[in-house]
Amino acid sequence: MGDSKCSNGVQHQGSAMTDAQLFEEQFEQLVTELTEKDFTDPVLADALNRLREVLQYNAPGGKRNRGLSVIGSLREFVPPSELSHDAVQRALLVGWCIELLQAFFLVADDIMDASVTRRGQPCWYKKEGVGLDAINDSFLLEGAIYRLLRRHCRAQPYYTHLLELFTETSFQTELGQALDLMTAPPNKIDLNRFTMERYKAIVKYKTAFYSFYLPVAAAMYMAGIDSEVEHRNAKTILLEMGEFFQIQDDYLDCYGDPAITGKIGTDIQDNKCSWLVVTALGVMTPEQREQLQSCYGCHDDESVERVKALYATLEMPSRYRQHEEESYQRLLKLIERHAQNLPHAVFLNFAKKIYKRNK
Amino acid sequence: MGDSKCSNGVQHQGSAMTDAQLFEEQFEQLVTELTEKDFTDPVLADALNRLREVLQYNAPGGKRNRGLSVIGSLREFVPPSELSHDAVQRALLVGWCIELLQAFFLVADDIMDASVTRRGQPCWYKKEGVGLDAINDSFLLEGAIYRLLRRHCRAQPYYTHLLELFTETSFQTELGQALDLMTAPPNKIDLNRFTMERYKAIVKYKTAFYSFYLPVAAAMYMAGIDSEVEHRNAKTILLEMGEFFQIQDDYLDCYGDPAITGKIGTDIQDNKCSWLVVTALGVMTPEQREQLQSCYGCHDDESVERVKALYATLEMPSRYRQHEEESYQRLLKLIERHAQNLPHAVFLNFAKKIYKRNK
Repeated sequence: MGDSKCSNGVQHQGSAMTDAQLFEEQFEQLVTELTEKDFTDPVLADALNRLREVLQYNAPGGKRNRGLSVIGSLREFVPPSELSHDAVQRALLVGWCIELLQAFFLVADDIMDASVTRRGQPCWYKKEGVGLDAINDSFLLEGAIYRLLRRHCRAQPYYTHLLELFTETSFQTELGQALDLMTAPPNKIDLNRFTMERYKAIVKYKTAFYSFYLPVAAAMYMAGIDSEVEHRNAKTILLEMGEFFQIQDDYLDCYGDPAITGKIGTDIQDNKCSWLVVTALGVMTPEQREQLQSCYGCHDDESVERVKALYATLEMPSRYRQHEEESYQRLLKLIERHAQNLPHAVFLNFAKKIYKRNK
Repeated sequence: MGDSKCSNGVQHQGSAMTDAQLFEEQFEQLVTELTEKDFTDPVLADALNRLREVLQYNAPGGKRNRGLSVIGSLREFVPPSELSHDAVQRALLVGWCIELLQAFFLVADDIMDASVTRRGQPCWYKKEGVGLDAINDSFLLEGAIYRLLRRHCRAQPYYTHLLELFTETSFQTELGQALDLMTAPPNKIDLNRFTMERYKAIVKYKTAFYSFYLPVAAAMYMAGIDSEVEHRNAKTILLEMGEFFQIQDDYLDCYGDPAITGKIGTDIQDNKCSWLVVTALGVMTPEQREQLQSCYGCHDDESVERVKALYATLEMPSRYRQHEEESYQRLLKLIERHAQNLPHAVFLNFAKKIYKRNK
């Protein structure tokens, strides 16, 4: 999702740059703006230095798919001749706001999950001298969103829509995180909580709204598309895509090639309510369930291997491939049915990037 | 601040109720609305139950001065004949949004400060089974603000102003908390960080904006007063009041009567950057400073008594009284100078409640 082709590049400082490069380039500008041009009261100097550090450590470093999807989608909604340089810059900025929202959640989630590393470096709260002060740092990341929107989009007709979109999406994500925390508390293993209904609810609220609906919805508002019907339609399609994306993520956690995905999965050890365990629970015998109960959420290699053996017996890879095919067909139908007035390309481009990915 | 006289009551269900009673009464309605009428997706049931618990434990229980100041101020800006029942209800609701903002900060601050009790009960994160999940709960409290504003004020001309006011004030408070955390880390005692400039910056950003400017500014927007000049003037006066309020709070922490204030101060033990210690540092000899260094921020009674003895030697109570009188005179002048087009009563009522209080 969101990777821009070169053809989407715009002329900039005399040389063609891709959206990804423009996006990259904008970050330092935004940091400077937030820390030197927004609040300038000299007594805030130390706090603003802290903000800079927090932004630089936590906002970049991700795949930026979410952030780049805003400009990517906007280019599908608005013909190139009608897309001004400023409109492009604003779309990139709103993309960074989504990356900041994600950073806000990740910094906090890592504390709640007692995680150790994130994006190949220590989690922010794990850094020397940070600790639980990271809670306030996460608030600063969230706060930066509204400073940027205010400074860059205040005069735009869609400004209030964006404020509502960001606050609503945040709340949905927080409700999803609440569900997730009560479904899979780190130290209490209770497979009865792992139902497919609960799994889908967590994915929808904790991930799909902010990762899939938010960037496209923001682009829609920026393109002047604000009808409730259009947004409902886009939401239906994008939440379905988000669900598939997370299922695939769960699959790759166990079956992906670490050399390609860049990470070693630990969902089994971490007692995660993953699509694999939920699906397996639905098809296993009471004996197998008892067996799973004794080895899921344990950190020793033997237990992990026993879970994987059980997954093999239950043919999870082939169940996954079947699900993937069905989901893809269902999605195409949803696009056919719901994307009437919206360019299908917005959704198809997303879908192409997601399905059959291996990282 | 904010306590309503009976004469400010409005007719309600056949009997006159004070604003304080109306405010009280509105809370359960808001909880029901947020947990049963806003998001109604049945898969969210558990998350919404959690939200209810978090709201009920953390939002009530304070003095409600901030919340009540919205309707209190609005009544000064708008004559009774022009204030509809709905406008009153909305002002009460915006008051609750301020109480929610405060709850959001308190839940998180208690974790960062490793506090044990709050408002006479265990801190939320200290409750059995809550722990660091309280971080997400604090987000839910913040998120509830924007749900309520959206549901009740969306059609009002001041809606966007309120969204901006709440996000900006939150960010200012977070910058203040960042300053506070780096000035007085729980375990590192360094009196060199305790300067009057830093003290004032922390008070202004961490407390005064959300406690003093926010409620009055919200009422101003609700009354249609949105000129930048008027807001700047009100801010000047209210931030000065907020500073005095905090200085008084610091004084009462050490010299207040626990039977009246309802709490036993621990600023000395907690290494707080209090007005007392900052002022004392400014007038003490190098020998006294060395003495203070050895006993400030220690939990044993003897150390605390040594700090208090030093304060006595430096005549802190009389310095405080002098400051109080000067501050009051300065405030009256500020009101005279800056409140030209605003009813002076808004500020004078505030001032009356604050100065010479003993709890």
